[in-house]
Amino acid sequence: MNLQKLAVVGLLAFIPLSQVHAQAQAGREIPAKVIPVPDTVSPEIKKQIAAPFTATWNVIPTTAEGWREQVAAGAQAAEKAIPALLDKLQVKVEPTVIDGVKAFIVTPAIVSAQNKNRLLVHVHGGCFVSSPGLSGTVEAIYMAGLEHVKVISVDYRMPPDHPYPAALDDAMTVWRATTKIHDPKKMAIFGSSAGGNLTLAMVLRAKRDNLPLPAAIAPGTPMSDLTGAGDTFQTNAMLDNVLVAYGVSCDKRAALYTNGHDLKDPMLSPVYGDLSGFPPTILTSGTRDLLLSNTVRVHRKLRNAGVPSSLQVFEGQSHAQYYRDINAPETKEAFGEIGQFFNQYLAQ
Amino acid sequence: MNLQKLAVVGLLAFIPLSQVHAQAQAGREIPAKVIPVPDTVSPEIKKQIAAPFTATWNVIPTTAEGWREQVAAGAQAAEKAIPALLDKLQVKVEPTVIDGVKAFIVTPAIVSAQNKNRLLVHVHGGCFVSSPGLSGTVEAIYMAGLEHVKVISVDYRMPPDHPYPAALDDAMTVWRATTKIHDPKKMAIFGSSAGGNLTLAMVLRAKRDNLPLPAAIAPGTPMSDLTGAGDTFQTNAMLDNVLVAYGVSCDKRAALYTNGHDLKDPMLSPVYGDLSGFPPTILTSGTRDLLLSNTVRVHRKLRNAGVPSSLQVFEGQSHAQYYRDINAPETKEAFGEIGQFFNQYLAQ
Repeated sequence: MNLQKLAVVGLLAFIPLSQVHAQAQAGREIPAKVIPVPDTVSPEIKKQIAAPFTATWNVIPTTAEGWREQVAAGAQAAEKAIPALLDKLQVKVEPTVIDGVKAFIVTPAIVSAQNKNRLLVHVHGGCFVSSPGLSGTVEAIYMAGLEHVKVISVDYRMPPDHPYPAALDDAMTVWRATTKIHDPKKMAIFGSSAGGNLTLAMVLRAKRDNLPLPAAIAPGTPMSDLTGAGDTFQTNAMLDNVLVAYGVSCDKRAALYTNGHDLKDPMLSPVYGDLSGFPPTILTSGTRDLLLSNTVRVHRKLRNAGVPSSLQVFEGQSHAQYYRDINAPETKEAFGEIGQFFNQYLAQ
Repeated sequence: MNLQKLAVVGLLAFIPLSQVHAQAQAGREIPAKVIPVPDTVSPEIKKQIAAPFTATWNVIPTTAEGWREQVAAGAQAAEKAIPALLDKLQVKVEPTVIDGVKAFIVTPAIVSAQNKNRLLVHVHGGCFVSSPGLSGTVEAIYMAGLEHVKVISVDYRMPPDHPYPAALDDAMTVWRATTKIHDPKKMAIFGSSAGGNLTLAMVLRAKRDNLPLPAAIAPGTPMSDLTGAGDTFQTNAMLDNVLVAYGVSCDKRAALYTNGHDLKDPMLSPVYGDLSGFPPTILTSGTRDLLLSNTVRVHRKLRNAGVPSSLQVFEGQSHAQYYRDINAPETKEAFGEIGQFFNQYLAQ
């Protein structure tokens, strides 16, 4: 509770009161409250819901060196859990370089018959700054191991050294290279959070550049709108224990990526793009997700563009909590749904 | 704002502090906040989001006569808007009686070619107490007029005079009678809120009694769990301006219906039922909906039972705000999705 209390104080300090007052007239006053851990989720997700805020959610370094240190510490912690995950899921991860871009080949011990000729491209999350190297492969390992399919995970360049469009350029380099040797009808792109943004932006870029499109995509809780619009940025503030609140958190990291570019550029905020002609898309979020709005807005926009699109929202989950615990039944459900969706739309 | 402030005071008075304190240890402390009206919805939905709480949300009569007065006043107000709606959508509504049960035949001026032989059965919302007679046909009128399909809307008996299972019995009487003269493969059942509960319970009852099942169903923001479980009862409290908060509102009305029965009985709380073998189901909710959790829980349970099921969640919407304004583009989207879904699964 102490960390959370500190975080609350932190948020109040960061949001200008003038802004709150300006909104008061048209806004809804919500009294302070204590939200219990719900009984309507698995014990594993209960544990995640009860966990304190991410330790560094509002710790924003002011120097490039500060960023490197924070990112390295986070990556080191994440990587510690990877050997056990690989072992449990019987997956191997091998570094590679594709046309100059670093990536990992993530291969399950057993590739299912239907997935024999399929290949997924993964773009990791981490607010465009975090999860470099091996630490960015966690979601790819879940997918490979649970759905028995081969994955290439792009270890794209990131700020502070490499702002936009480096990450998207790298992802497109991998996409261009792999679609030359694999049939894109047997390929999908997936990734959560910043990876969800990049998944959507990759399709926009592929459309623009007349490159082949994937047969399906799975942007998980995508950072589809970097302008700060989206109701759940407000309504789920301090409730989502991963991103916690807009204004002092993941958005400050994303700002290193956007680096002064127009935030409404669809390559940065894909919800403002032309989503017509998109491949079938499955979206994943949670009821406490700070990005629930920016997930459902993409879903609605895709549906209005006539794109087959499926939405799954998990009870009580904050941002991207569907790949945090391999033992949670909801984790298997989330990937199971994506696997089924891909199986429906990818050629064999 | 005055009504809202009063409501806040009302809520605090109604929730026992001991309960709040008991939960505090494992719960998340959310500071008081002002939530602005988002810019990410249509002007029509903005208006709905900015509206004060439903005037009677926590006004709970203590006598049968008090209930009758409140319900009659609400019905009268709702009915005032119906002639203009009928005119705009070119729909006619005719009262009928089916095997002793009151109902309305809701017919659009133009029935689309694909819907020529199709018939939808509608069970209205209103927390099991409200929206009797013509006032309960609003959602059916939207469906008939927007999707060009014939609807029978059940004017089921309600408390205080007729608690459970009267409403469900009446709905089943209509279902039994209509499926004798119409092919159930060309039929669907839909309804929101209490009507979503009844839609689900009707399928459970039809399964139990070996009656024909509909070809598809559309429970909108269903009251699928009358026990009070569901995270968004807490997280969206005071944010949803239709139901507002659990404990003093729609649940007190539903208690007249459940009338001492076991709340975990799947006929009362369908989320606890065996949903295997259900027909394809499309669910609708909003990010501010007090019943978002109990919508997504049904979606997950259906998917885990292998039922084709689609979820649509609308940005910023509170409980069942998708059939409040015929001019909101989101309204047409919501019914358009349901219409497409029915078209996919109903025989012609």
